[in-house]
Amino acid sequence: MTREEALALDAADPLARFRAAFALPDGVIYLDGNSLGPPPIAAHERLAQASRAEWGEGLIRSWNTSGWIDAPLRVGGKIARLIGADPGEVTIADSTSVNLFKLAAGALSLRPGRKTILSEAGNFPTDLYALQGLAALLGDRAALKAVAAADLPGAIDEDTAVVVLTHIHYKSARRWDMAAITAAAHAKGALVLWDLCHSVGSVAVDLNGVDADLAVGCSYKYLNGGPGAPAFVFVAERHQAAIVSPLTGWMGHAEPFAFEDGYRPAADIRGQITGTPPILGLAALEAGVDLQLQADPAQVEAKGLALAELFIAEVEARAADRDLRLASPRDPAARGLHVAFAHPQGYALVQAMMARGIVGDFRAPDIARFGFSPLFLSYVEVWEAAHALGEVLNTGSWDQPEFRKRAAVT
Amino acid sequence: MTREEALALDAADPLARFRAAFALPDGVIYLDGNSLGPPPIAAHERLAQASRAEWGEGLIRSWNTSGWIDAPLRVGGKIARLIGADPGEVTIADSTSVNLFKLAAGALSLRPGRKTILSEAGNFPTDLYALQGLAALLGDRAALKAVAAADLPGAIDEDTAVVVLTHIHYKSARRWDMAAITAAAHAKGALVLWDLCHSVGSVAVDLNGVDADLAVGCSYKYLNGGPGAPAFVFVAERHQAAIVSPLTGWMGHAEPFAFEDGYRPAADIRGQITGTPPILGLAALEAGVDLQLQADPAQVEAKGLALAELFIAEVEARAADRDLRLASPRDPAARGLHVAFAHPQGYALVQAMMARGIVGDFRAPDIARFGFSPLFLSYVEVWEAAHALGEVLNTGSWDQPEFRKRAAVT
Repeated sequence: MTREEALALDAADPLARFRAAFALPDGVIYLDGNSLGPPPIAAHERLAQASRAEWGEGLIRSWNTSGWIDAPLRVGGKIARLIGADPGEVTIADSTSVNLFKLAAGALSLRPGRKTILSEAGNFPTDLYALQGLAALLGDRAALKAVAAADLPGAIDEDTAVVVLTHIHYKSARRWDMAAITAAAHAKGALVLWDLCHSVGSVAVDLNGVDADLAVGCSYKYLNGGPGAPAFVFVAERHQAAIVSPLTGWMGHAEPFAFEDGYRPAADIRGQITGTPPILGLAALEAGVDLQLQADPAQVEAKGLALAELFIAEVEARAADRDLRLASPRDPAARGLHVAFAHPQGYALVQAMMARGIVGDFRAPDIARFGFSPLFLSYVEVWEAAHALGEVLNTGSWDQPEFRKRAAVT
Repeated sequence: MTREEALALDAADPLARFRAAFALPDGVIYLDGNSLGPPPIAAHERLAQASRAEWGEGLIRSWNTSGWIDAPLRVGGKIARLIGADPGEVTIADSTSVNLFKLAAGALSLRPGRKTILSEAGNFPTDLYALQGLAALLGDRAALKAVAAADLPGAIDEDTAVVVLTHIHYKSARRWDMAAITAAAHAKGALVLWDLCHSVGSVAVDLNGVDADLAVGCSYKYLNGGPGAPAFVFVAERHQAAIVSPLTGWMGHAEPFAFEDGYRPAADIRGQITGTPPILGLAALEAGVDLQLQADPAQVEAKGLALAELFIAEVEARAADRDLRLASPRDPAARGLHVAFAHPQGYALVQAMMARGIVGDFRAPDIARFGFSPLFLSYVEVWEAAHALGEVLNTGSWDQPEFRKRAAVT
């Protein structure tokens, strides 16, 4: 592809107008929106509003007058529209890690007598860690079984309470067939808990269309919700009355301000809320979600996949380094919106790109990862990034000591 | 006391200078800093810095370059100085509710063979709820016993794994003798988990001075950290290697960016962190903590108690309503920095005061609650609030339909 052809794609891009909603720094091509999305300009404004007007002027009264108390359900209801759920099926709560523990325990409560929590070896670490923590706490009442992806469908059996999978793999971007796995689990009487961290705001997700049970997700990647933004929880309406949350806090009580000694869970999605909602984080997040809701989800996915295809093709056409290997599925239909290239010097590669203002990230042991957020990236930026990666590889310019020095966060 | 005497107290107040660090709205006397502290002006600035410069310009790089990854330990270390802990004993993590679950489970892991979690009937609801959730999850391996305060010391026995108490009661402001209870628990081999929500930033707390084991607390009350600000966790250094957290997320791993399948807990306080830290909330919170660190803790407690004394004395000297009853301990040494008056029309009373710009809050079933945050309140404001309450009571001006209409959040 020529640069002119990339520019022509931008000229025809129905999502191009969203770039103006962001203020990205000059000289940066940001291919890490899959790790931390950049701030929508509106997020700065919403934060200032929440901080100066609502907190500063309204003070405690803003719990009522600025809708703070409803914010987890309000923002959750908006996220619901992005993942094929009903508004009353999603709430903001806690972190993804805490929500994984909460919903995996909840799944066990919905499938009494079953002990197995089934997941994928090599799943995002926090998913495995949260499940390990739960299994260790429950002793002989639960066991975590993590198997290779290829073995997973066959490993679902009559003892499986819940299958816990990340829809799009954090390293490879491999995409599970959500409908097929959900159906396979249901055929054995098991539930599925989907981690949508890399899916929400990127690829089409239709939870109710696949008869999904449970899901969690973070909001700081493609939703551009801010660093450490609060996470969300989905519980299908049919499970809400029966599911037992182990993390019972005052905001999940049927009547929080009755101040009763005994916990009576809210019978709806509120029962998944634990503590006091993080209002400042919610304010920034809501700006990101509102922006996402203005985009056509089919266009979002199509553009992200097209950017990834362009990147793969241009890198592979140029890079002569035989150590470079595509570590993502080649079939776009089996992939999310980021691309992983394996290289023995993956870390240094990412640093060398960073020095040119092209931001990706590294995932141990050898993955250089590049994300293609559709709302703010242009085709020509991705074209330039691909050419830069080719040049870095062909000139060996990554081979410098300062590019090998590991930072705390990779 | 005359108004002039109150003004004289303000003129001599060594903490008076802190008022300028806040931008409280005109016409408001804010006696609800014990529920939600007002924003320090620096919090707005820190939030804008975190949002526009760190998130907007630094993007993903800010995890390293703006100290985001260290923020939970950095801010935790500052809070440690306010509660008599060492810097490596406190971290920011999750919400108070989640942390109560986490540390109560951790206490059970430190006292194998013991099953009883002992708490106080009428404790803040989320404390009881979190413990109920844990006990329900653990089945016959744990039992929550909640007894009246008077019966509590005598209820600690050889089956008690942990005593969970709120140091200063959310309604009455009654203050537990932290040293005595901790010693009584230790004498029976039990641990104590202190909830410091109403203590941090208000009264002197010396966790290591009383040989404390575990503590949690929120940061949105006297620390002025912002609505729903993230909470903190204290684990005494001697317990850190052995305590088992059930909430195991990637940020509590010994090497989060090794991306290993198996959880290996950090052997220090980091093991209590679960998910990705909430950076925007932490930014606002750090401004509040930094401000608090500039004040002498002894002066803070002394002023808060003096304000409360002034309020009680002036209200009782004026209010002729025989239905009004002090529901806080009369002895200031047995009390925190808020004051509870019981009244059958407590809710309407609070609303009538609110209509005059004097903000307190209501706690079911009949408590009008007024908090005396020492950093931003003046003696003359409290004098005026007390006189207003006397007038509202004596004129019966609370007796209006619009003052009885309950809001979602009381």
